[in-house]
This record gives sequence, C-alpha cells and structure tokens, in this order.
Amino acid sequence: MTEGPLKTIVLGASGYAGGELIKILDRHPGFNLKFIGANQKKGERLSFVHPQFWEPYLTDIHPQLQGGTRRLESSDLDKLPDCEVALLALPHTASAPIAIALAEKGTMVIDLSADFRFDDPEIYQNTYGSPHLYPDQLGEWHYALPELFPVPKGHKKLAIPGCYPTAVLLAMAPFLQKDYVEDSGTIVADCMSGVTGAGRKLAENLMFGAIAEGVQAYGVGGHRHRPEIEMGISKLSGFSTKVVFTPHLIPIQRGLTATVTIPLKEEIHEKDAFFDLFDFYKEAPLVEVVEVPPQSRWVSGSGRAMVAVFRDPNANTLIALSAIDNLLKGAASQAVQAANLALGWNETTGLELIGNLP
Amino acid sequence: MTEGPLKTIVLGASGYAGGELIKILDRHPGFNLKFIGANQKKGERLSFVHPQFWEPYLTDIHPQLQGGTRRLESSDLDKLPDCEVALLALPHTASAPIAIALAEKGTMVIDLSADFRFDDPEIYQNTYGSPHLYPDQLGEWHYALPELFPVPKGHKKLAIPGCYPTAVLLAMAPFLQKDYVEDSGTIVADCMSGVTGAGRKLAENLMFGAIAEGVQAYGVGGHRHRPEIEMGISKLSGFSTKVVFTPHLIPIQRGLTATVTIPLKEEIHEKDAFFDLFDFYKEAPLVEVVEVPPQSRWVSGSGRAMVAVFRDPNANTLIALSAIDNLLKGAASQAVQAANLALGWNETTGLELIGNLP
Amino acid sequence: MTEGPLKTIVLGASGYAGGELIKILDRHPGFNLKFIGANQKKGERLSFVHPQFWEPYLTDIHPQLQGGTRRLESSDLDKLPDCEVALLALPHTASAPIAIALAEKGTMVIDLSADFRFDDPEIYQNTYGSPHLYPDQLGEWHYALPELFPVPKGHKKLAIPGCYPTAVLLAMAPFLQKDYVEDSGTIVADCMSGVTGAGRKLAENLMFGAIAEGVQAYGVGGHRHRPEIEMGISKLSGFSTKVVFTPHLIPIQRGLTATVTIPLKEEIHEKDAFFDLFDFYKEAPLVEVVEVPPQSRWVSGSGRAMVAVFRDPNANTLIALSAIDNLLKGAASQAVQAANLALGWNETTGLELIGNLP
Amino acid sequence: MTEGPLKTIVLGASGYAGGELIKILDRHPGFNLKFIGANQKKGERLSFVHPQFWEPYLTDIHPQLQGGTRRLESSDLDKLPDCEVALLALPHTASAPIAIALAEKGTMVIDLSADFRFDDPEIYQNTYGSPHLYPDQLGEWHYALPELFPVPKGHKKLAIPGCYPTAVLLAMAPFLQKDYVEDSGTIVADCMSGVTGAGRKLAENLMFGAIAEGVQAYGVGGHRHRPEIEMGISKLSGFSTKVVFTPHLIPIQRGLTATVTIPLKEEIHEKDAFFDLFDFYKEAPLVEVVEVPPQSRWVSGSGRAMVAVFRDPNANTLIALSAIDNLLKGAASQAVQAANLALGWNETTGLELIGNLP
Repeated sequence: MTEGPLKTIVLGASGYAGGELIKILDRHPGFNLKFIGANQKKGERLSFVHPQFWEPYLTDIHPQLQGGTRRLESSDLDKLPDCEVALLALPHTASAPIAIALAEKGTMVIDLSADFRFDDPEIYQNTYGSPHLYPDQLGEWHYALPELFPVPKGHKKLAIPGCYPTAVLLAMAPFLQKDYVEDSGTIVADCMSGVTGAGRKLAENLMFGAIAEGVQAYGVGGHRHRPEIEMGISKLSGFSTKVVFTPHLIPIQRGLTATVTIPLKEEIHEKDAFFDLFDFYKEAPLVEVVEVPPQSRWVSGSGRAMVAVFRDPNANTLIALSAIDNLLKGAASQAVQAANLALGWNETTGLELIGNLP
Repeated sequence: MTEGPLKTIVLGASGYAGGELIKILDRHPGFNLKFIGANQKKGERLSFVHPQFWEPYLTDIHPQLQGGTRRLESSDLDKLPDCEVALLALPHTASAPIAIALAEKGTMVIDLSADFRFDDPEIYQNTYGSPHLYPDQLGEWHYALPELFPVPKGHKKLAIPGCYPTAVLLAMAPFLQKDYVEDSGTIVADCMSGVTGAGRKLAENLMFGAIAEGVQAYGVGGHRHRPEIEMGISKLSGFSTKVVFTPHLIPIQRGLTATVTIPLKEEIHEKDAFFDLFDFYKEAPLVEVVEVPPQSRWVSGSGRAMVAVFRDPNANTLIALSAIDNLLKGAASQAVQAANLALGWNETTGLELIGNLP
Repeated sequence: MTEGPLKTIVLGASGYAGGELIKILDRHPGFNLKFIGANQKKGERLSFVHPQFWEPYLTDIHPQLQGGTRRLESSDLDKLPDCEVALLALPHTASAPIAIALAEKGTMVIDLSADFRFDDPEIYQNTYGSPHLYPDQLGEWHYALPELFPVPKGHKKLAIPGCYPTAVLLAMAPFLQKDYVEDSGTIVADCMSGVTGAGRKLAENLMFGAIAEGVQAYGVGGHRHRPEIEMGISKLSGFSTKVVFTPHLIPIQRGLTATVTIPLKEEIHEKDAFFDLFDFYKEAPLVEVVEVPPQSRWVSGSGRAMVAVFRDPNANTLIALSAIDNLLKGAASQAVQAANLALGWNETTGLELIGNLP
Repeated sequence: MTEGPLKTIVLGASGYAGGELIKILDRHPGFNLKFIGANQKKGERLSFVHPQFWEPYLTDIHPQLQGGTRRLESSDLDKLPDCEVALLALPHTASAPIAIALAEKGTMVIDLSADFRFDDPEIYQNTYGSPHLYPDQLGEWHYALPELFPVPKGHKKLAIPGCYPTAVLLAMAPFLQKDYVEDSGTIVADCMSGVTGAGRKLAENLMFGAIAEGVQAYGVGGHRHRPEIEMGISKLSGFSTKVVFTPHLIPIQRGLTATVTIPLKEEIHEKDAFFDLFDFYKEAPLVEVVEVPPQSRWVSGSGRAMVAVFRDPNANTLIALSAIDNLLKGAASQAVQAANLALGWNETTGLELIGNLP
C-alpha cells in the first residue's frame, strides 16, 4: 500500500450507491474520505440524508453544545478539493465532464455512471439518445467487471458496469465459448431487481403504495442495459450473440437476480456445466458458486455474487442463475473492488462479504 | 338459471384457494354453499382459519350467549352431504378418489388439483412420480382454461389448470399459430409468483423471515407445470414446442406474472402483434389487453387476467406478458368461471373484476 | 329506496380514498356515479390513475378502434354536473367552499376532509393553523361515525371522521362512562397505520426505499387527530379526558390498529369488560367484537371494524384494541355507510364485509 | 487485550441471534470462535442454515474436490470443547444447566436466555411458569444492559436482557428519577417488533402469508417482558412503577421501536427533557440521542440504539422513543458489548455501528 491512505472524494453522495460508497470507504484502510458532494442536498447533514450513519450533532438546535458532523457539499468542479481518488455516483451525462476534468489532473476516477462503459460512441448514442461528448475517451476507460475483465494495475480510468449487466454477464460468461453452447442462439435474460436499482428519486411508480405486493416487467424490448450486456459478450467471446433482456421490479429494497437461458447444441451433463462454472470462478474471492438457486437475500449487504447453473433436459438449455446486491456488487462494492485491483491492493480489502439478512 | 341455487360443497377449505372459493360462492346467486370440509382443521371455526370471514360466535367462551357460525368439517367421503356441485381444493392424489366417487353419483365436480389435467397417464406419471389411479378417466375431464378451451355446456367433470400454466398459456396462445412465429423455436417462460402459490403449509422456506426482501428461482429445469404448459400448447396448436419454464418466488402474498419470450421467423410490427392479441381476447370478459406491462397488483383480488405484448427488435422476438391473481384466475375464480359456463350461466357471475390494491 | 339511483359525483377521485369510493359506488344500487373529478389528474384515464379498474380503451393508440372508458375531470365548481349526492375526498381547506356551494344547492354532501369535523372554530384553528372560513357552518354538520353518533335520517351534511379517531373512538367508547373507569385518567392511544393513510402524494418519506423494513412514530405530541379524538370523547361522555395519541407508520399499504390503554379505578373481571364491549356493539353490523387481538389483515378490504378488550391485572388498566382498513372504515366505506343511514337505507348496502387477505 | 484471542463457543447457533453472534465473533479480534453448536441442525453446513455466510464446499456432491466449511455441532455438554468464553442463545430452561456447568469450569458465560435475568426466583416462576432450577444462582448474574447497569470488569456471569426491556428501559431510564416525573404514575410502553423477535421457528402465525400487510398486538396484558421491565425500573430507581406493556408484531424482519408515555407532575420544557436525555447518554458510544422520532431502519444491522424524547403539552406527559435492531442491541451485539466490558476491552470492539438500510 502507498504511504498513508489516499485522499478520496465521493460525488453523488446523496443517492443509494453514494451512501454505500461512504460506508465502504469510511472503513477502508487505503482511502481517506475527505469530501462528500451532492448538489441536490448540499449543505444538509449526512445524518439526515443517510440516517444509518447518524453522527452526533447538536449545534443546530443547541448552539451551546459542540458538535462535529459531516455535511454534503457542492459537487461543482471548482469547489472540489484536491484528491487522489474520485468515485462518481452521478447521473449519466452529468458525470462525463467532471470525470474528464478530474482525470486530466491525474486523479484516479472510478465512474459509476454509464458514460464510459461503451467503447463505441454510436452504441452510446443509440442507447442513451444523445451523442457522446467525449467520443475519443471511450477506448481509454476500463470496463471494470473484474472477474471477467481483469483490471490492469495502475489504470486510472475505471467505468463500473451497470447492475443488470454485472449479474447477467457473471451468470453467462463461463459458458460463452463452450463447445456445447449454441453460439448463434438467442439468450434470454430475465432479471428481478429491488427498487433501489431505480435510484433514489421521487417518482409515483416508486412509492410504497405503488410497489408493495406487486411485480412488473418494465423497459420491455428496450432497456439500456441490453446493449451493455451484448457489448460484454462481444468482448468476452467475439460473438455477436443476441440477448433478450427483460427486467422486473419487485418489492424489495436491494437485491437482484438474473435467470439466463442459454441454448445448447449438444446434450451435456448438468454436472459438467457446474464444473465449468466452478473452474471459471475458482480464483474469484467475490463470486460464490452454489449448488442451489441463489437467493438475493443471501448476498444482501455483501460484495459477493452467487452463481449457479442447471440444465433443462427437456429443451436442452442451460439455465444460469446469479444473485447480487444491486447497490454493492452491482455498484459501490464493485467500484471499490476495481479500485483495489487498480491500486495493486487485495481485491476484497474493505468489502463486506457476509450478507445482512435476516 | 335453474330453479334455486345448487347445493354446493367445498373440500380443502382450509387452504388459500379454499378460502377464496368460500368468498366467491357465498355471494354467488347460483350456488348454495352448505358444507365446507377440511380434514386438517376439522371442527375449527371458519373465523379462526380464515379470519377475514369473521362470524360472531360467543358460545365457546360465553355459553350463555347464543351463536351461529360455520365450522370446518371432515372431508371423508362418507361424511359428505348430498350435493349437486363439489369444488375440490385438495392435494393431488388425495383429490382423485373423492372426485371420482362424487362424479359417479352425478355431482358436477370442479377439481382444482393436478389429478385430471393431463390426458395422458404417462405424462402424469412422469410429472407427479406415481401411476395415475384412474387412467381411463383422463380423457373425460375438460381442461378448463375457458378462454382457450371453451367449456362445453353440461360438462360435469372440470379440471382447473395450474396457476403458472394459466398465466403462461394466456400470454402465448394468441401467437402460437401465427405465420410470423418460429414454430420450432424454444419458448422461454419466466414467472414470478407470490407465496400463496405454494399453498398454505408450514415450511421453513415460506416463513416471513425467509421470504421478505428476497427473490429466488426454484424448481429450475424440473417444475411440474412445464409439462402442463406443453400439453396446453399441443392442444392449441398441434405443435410440440419446447418451453423452458423457470418460476421465481417473490415476497408478495398473491400475484403472478409471466414473461414469455417467443422467437419470430419474420420481422413484424409490434402493433400487429398487439392487434392479434386484441382480436384474440376481444370477446373474453376476463382477459384485459393492456398497452403497458401489466402489474400483478392491478389484478390482485380480481378474477381478471391482464395480457400485453411487445417486440424486441434487436433479437426479433415477441415478449408476451401476463398478470393474474394466482388464487383467483390461477385457481378459485377460474373454477367458478368454468362452472358458470358448464352450467350455462353468465361467465362472470359472482366474480370480482376490480382488484383490491392499494 | 327512492325512485332510481341518485345522481352522484366524487371529487378528489385520484387519491386512495377516491379510488375506494368509486369502487363502492359503482356497485351500489342506490347511487349512479356519473362524474369523477380530480384536478391534478384531469383528463387522464381512470385506468391509468387506478389501474385496478382497468377499462378497455384503445382509441388513444389505435384510433380506428372504438372505445369507452372513464376519465377524470376538473373538480372546479362551475364544471360540475347537477347531482343529488356529492362525496368529497379533497384536502382540508380545499373542500369547504365546494362543500358549502353544493350544500346550498340542496345536494347531500359527504365530506371526507377535516373541514367540518369540529363544532368549535377555535379548535379547528388551533389544530389546522388557520381560521375556519365558515365558522357558522360548524354546528350544522354531523360527525358521522355512525356506531357512536347515529346519523339522523334526512341529514344532508355529513363530516366523515379521520381514520385514527375512528379506530380510537370505536375501541374506547364502550368504556367511557363505565363506573370502573378512572374518568380523570389520561388515556394513551398508540396507533399503527399503513402508508395509504398519508394520502397519495409524492414524498421522500413515503418511497418504498424509505418505508420498507422500518417503523417510526410521527407527529409525536402534536398530531391533528388528537383534538378530534378528544372532541369525540367529550361528545360521548361530557368528560374532557386527555388523550396521549402517538401514530406510527408501518410498511403496509392499508390497515390501521389502535391500542388504547385506559386506567381503571376498580378491579374488574376482564370478561365483564368484554361483555360491556359486546353489548355496546351487538346491534352494529360493521363492528365485530373478537376474543383475540384483531389483526389489520383481517379487515383489509372490508368495511368492518374489529374490536377487543383485555385487562392488565398488574397495572389495573384496560387495553382496548381495534383494527380497521384505513381507506374503508377509516374513510370511503364509512362515508357510504353514513350516506346509507342518512338516506334511510340499509347500513351495509354496497359495502364489502369480507376482507381480501391473504 | 489478553494474549491471543479467547477460545469461544456459541450454542444455539441455528437461530437468528446465533447467526448474528457468529457474524460478530468471526471478525472480533478478541475471540476465536472455534465451535458452533445447534442441536436441531447438528451436522448441517452453516452455509445451508445461514446462507449469508456461504462457504465454499463441494465435497458433498463432488467428492473429488477438496473443501473446508463449518458445520453445526451438538450442543450437548459432554460434546463441548474447552473454551474460555461461551455465548448461549438457547431457549429458557434449556440454557440454565449448560450455563451453570460451564460457569463452574471457570468459563465466562454470556447467556442470552431469560434464565438469569431476574434476581428473584418467585418473579421468575410467576413469569415463566415453573420454579427456577438454580434459585441460589440468581443474584450472581449481572443484568447486562451496559448503559444502565455498568458491567463489572472481570465478571464472568452475564445475563443479556430481552429485546423489549432493552428498548423500553433505554427510552425511560433517563427520566425515572427526575423531579418532574410522576413517580407513582403508570407508564405505558407500546412496542413494535419485526418477526425475528419471535425466534426462528415454524409457526403458522409467522408465515409470510400470515404476516405481510398486517399488524397485531399480542401478549396483551401478560407478556413475559413486562416483569423484566419493572425489575429494571426497580433496580434503577427503587420505585415499583407499574408499566403497561403491549408488544405488536409488524411485517419487518428486524427492528424494534418503543413508544413510552411517562406522566409528568410538573410542566417542563421539552428541551429540558431533551438535555436530560442527552446528558444521560453523552458517554455512551452505542446510544444515539436524536432530535426526531427514530426509525428502526436507521439501526437495522447496527449495534446502536437511538433514543428521543418529546413532550405532549396537552396531557403533560413525556413520550420517550427508542429504536434498536432486536437481533443486535436487543440480543447479539449487546452480548458482545457486555463481554467487551467484562473483559476490559473497548465497548464497541467488533461491533457494526452503521446500519445496513436501504
């Protein structure tokens, strides 16, 4: 590790992923989190925005008492302190200019938005609806799903994958280049996500009274994570496999599962697929291969993914399953995992492995 | 309608579907529900087994007060009163002998178990693990998913489909014989169900502390409803299309959605598929064609199904969606709907159409 | 019943209570619901605002198809059709002028807001923070909690109680004038409510991600329903008993329970209190006296209340309990129950008695 | 700290509190958890009993692979290894003999059951229904609610309080001896708890389908934690104040709040009560005084309690509020906090302070 922890900032700290980043970085020996920015809540106490962090502070109402507590600050570029590492949990398009400016100063930038996930500006534009502002930059950012795309040590521009691509790619990657897989076959990926996946925003469809006791598909036939999944497949295998991706919103706070149906061209034994899965992840400390369908509860609060595979003998397909915490392996902990690797540290430093349920 | 309501009994009344049957029959003008049987709870007050029905009764603790309330009674064959209609919400294999005995006496039998859903005893045996006790009976029972297999008036042996086959077949049926569908293609049906779909039983995996804030696939590659779905396809189209069916358990009490991915062989317009769907159900009072992904909340408490269809232009597939209340259109209300039709009554008599959420 | 159903309107129809009013009135033989107003959603299809009502309509996207469906309309006074009955589910202060204008035309007005619950304009002002605009009107409206304050036949100005006062007063009323109760004692009423009690509004603290897996007290020491509860006590008993009222928000959609601790001055037998409770409600078709602590689930979807009473022998207090559906007995069904009585009809006409859970 | 971590065992490890103990002890530098016992699940893999701990292990199904994972073992006394510290999360009456036997060998015993919470065997017998088997032991165990009853360094017999007494006593203790409190007044404590508070057991009333979307009081007038609360008051103040305690079960997994209404004899300013609360806990690292009603979500996953106080000016009472995680500050983390203090270590060593929601 370098001499002393690195001066670190988080922007977009008022959202769900922002809160998780603070929690991880506060206890990580390698980072010194000295600034938390969030334009929408600037000036507010961290305790009120993320009450799980509650910090004693009484001077607001009781000026005679001393207090010390953190507040969220402006994310404007000219207000940011010098730092060695910046983690950006900002909306797409808002993130890119700040990321570029910081990177130009030599800061290591870990960007959780979609702005630098694609190599190809045309795909970005087709997917996000407007031209990329920094098309020349796209090849320079590493798509940081570490188990599939090893993070080069020293790399300072990291683009963290979306939550759905993380889950889907972790489930399917071990099989993409197997002989027994129908490489021209269409893959169907149905995913279920908790509501924090939609971000922390006021929206009628995210109210408790609109979510509880229900389930719904959304973004059917056109979700933005589908091109990202196909890009991942292409990077991994060279194939331009088509994926039909349908996300579903379920009444849980955090948790995401992927059920990925993969056509086979040969009849194989289920256990052979299992061993291929096991071999693929045997060195991965944050992917657990399990023998039963993984539940999202088991990794809620954990930086681990769980994966499993089954074979449907009737239709001769694989059914590859994964479960992650959408805010951790799907966002914040994956960001820190990637940073750990880029910095040459232990992959799991600072990360919680054991889930928090029940 | 016949002269006077029909003498009716419900067996298996202590379960979730049993409770829904009582609720529907109590208010249905054509039925006189005179007996509710449930061996596991026999002798118990209905008020304690299904507290939503709470009926005043004080003589237990206050013998000086008069009271009148219903109790659950033995389901043993020799204890049953004479009746014109019997609705059986019993476990499979337990249901068949009672169903046969009642049917032989001329009773109309509506069986909600799996015992008479299949035509072919071999498929039954492969699916449920033991030989069918009445193989000669199998062709005599009508698979009563009324929108797809019209119920013959006067038919007195009705087998009610499973909840998943109902949802999956309603979503896919309109497209099975379309020219634009790849009839040799594998169909992927991923479903999400609330916990009441598993029945009302004591099981570790159905405890609140094992279900809340989670989601899981189960029965992967081998669920019993897959052969039933394929039987429905075969009846409808003559095709032996393969279906990969993966159910998921989500933390809601009632509600079931199906997401069915259907390969296309031609490029079609999404709206053409929509119109085909609309035409297919235009005379069906209990299937609503909607322009957005249907939510299970919208039909919770309702005897209606909602269906929708989208096209994924990237992979050229249809994504057909449906939502039902697993205890109603997936069980109890479908049973009464089928009975209404067999008796020559209005299809929706006695059924609630408007959901109860929020 | 009068000749033909009464021409009826609902204003505030986009909220949760508004939706329940539509559901009840649509099936009530005495009312002809001909207009549903909701300024915030005016012009929108009822199907989109309250999808449980889904009504087929395709002309929006498919103009060649005919359709017929309901839309929400302006609630402005000059846009309202003539009507014989108006049910107002509007915010307080917005409701009063419309209520007065309609009442002046001879319309029967059932107001679900707080605007006419109090007799005393000073208490209104202290509680709601601004002077009442129609102080002379206050004595003319009947506080329509029918089991406690019988609704006079022919009365055309009905103020429907708040959800918490309904639950708390139903639990405590039978005991208020009993000799064994300490009439100078402070009563503690702790209540738990589902989130629909807060209305259907966009608010950070009502998001799924802020409510699930939590519980919180709110309005501690100052909730607006406390003066209403004390007014009810005073009307019933003449006492100015103090009530400490603390509401709690719990992660359910609908349901409300009250736990009311009442000091005793004599030692009594628990069963004597039970019989007093039983006698008090023996003629009330919509209050069920139960021998166990009632669960809100049991009356979810029902117009019934459940009440129970226990004695704490250690502290010599009664613990009176009640459970209601906050949107029904706490709002919409109570409004129709009151209208039924004012119109001389059967108290329960059009109301659902059986709950909808599980 | 002593030389090397202490050899430690957990018994009752298959329950919810047992799982939390394992999680805490695994990362605590002072303990070496070498044995986890659970008779009901003995022989089972920890991964299956508490899947959040998932440990790679493949030899069951794939004997050619090496594996290492933990299994639950017999809790029988003669099977236990030598140890320096034992944490017992066993049912009451089952715990006492094991606790005594271990204590006699010099083991530090932290007992989470009710067996040694009372000083007076008569109260134990009245509360738990059978005579205490070791009445002479009762005075020797420390009631380890550390903020209220400081844990003596070196004490080796620690009885951990119940979850409800912890929450109620933390809320009320700062006020018990204040001049402005009516010391002969009855205190009302209404509490809401998540379902894990009932333990991990198969019971109809704890099924998801019996809990979701509901709330209920239980144990009304007779819960076993009431005498424990009154014992705590007596220890703290010498008063024999009566408490009316009503617990409620709500549909959350973990979390517990207490709403405690305390009669005043003088009119005081709310802020004076607040400062008294603040002063009382200013040295307590695990009790946070907050200015708003604390939500159970904020401490879910945390070893901290949150407390607040308000005054109802109408009835002149205090309303003291608290929120804890019933499995942590209400059980497992409080056990380790007490052990830390008894061992002379930092009070918060090994404990998570930051909650895990959303």
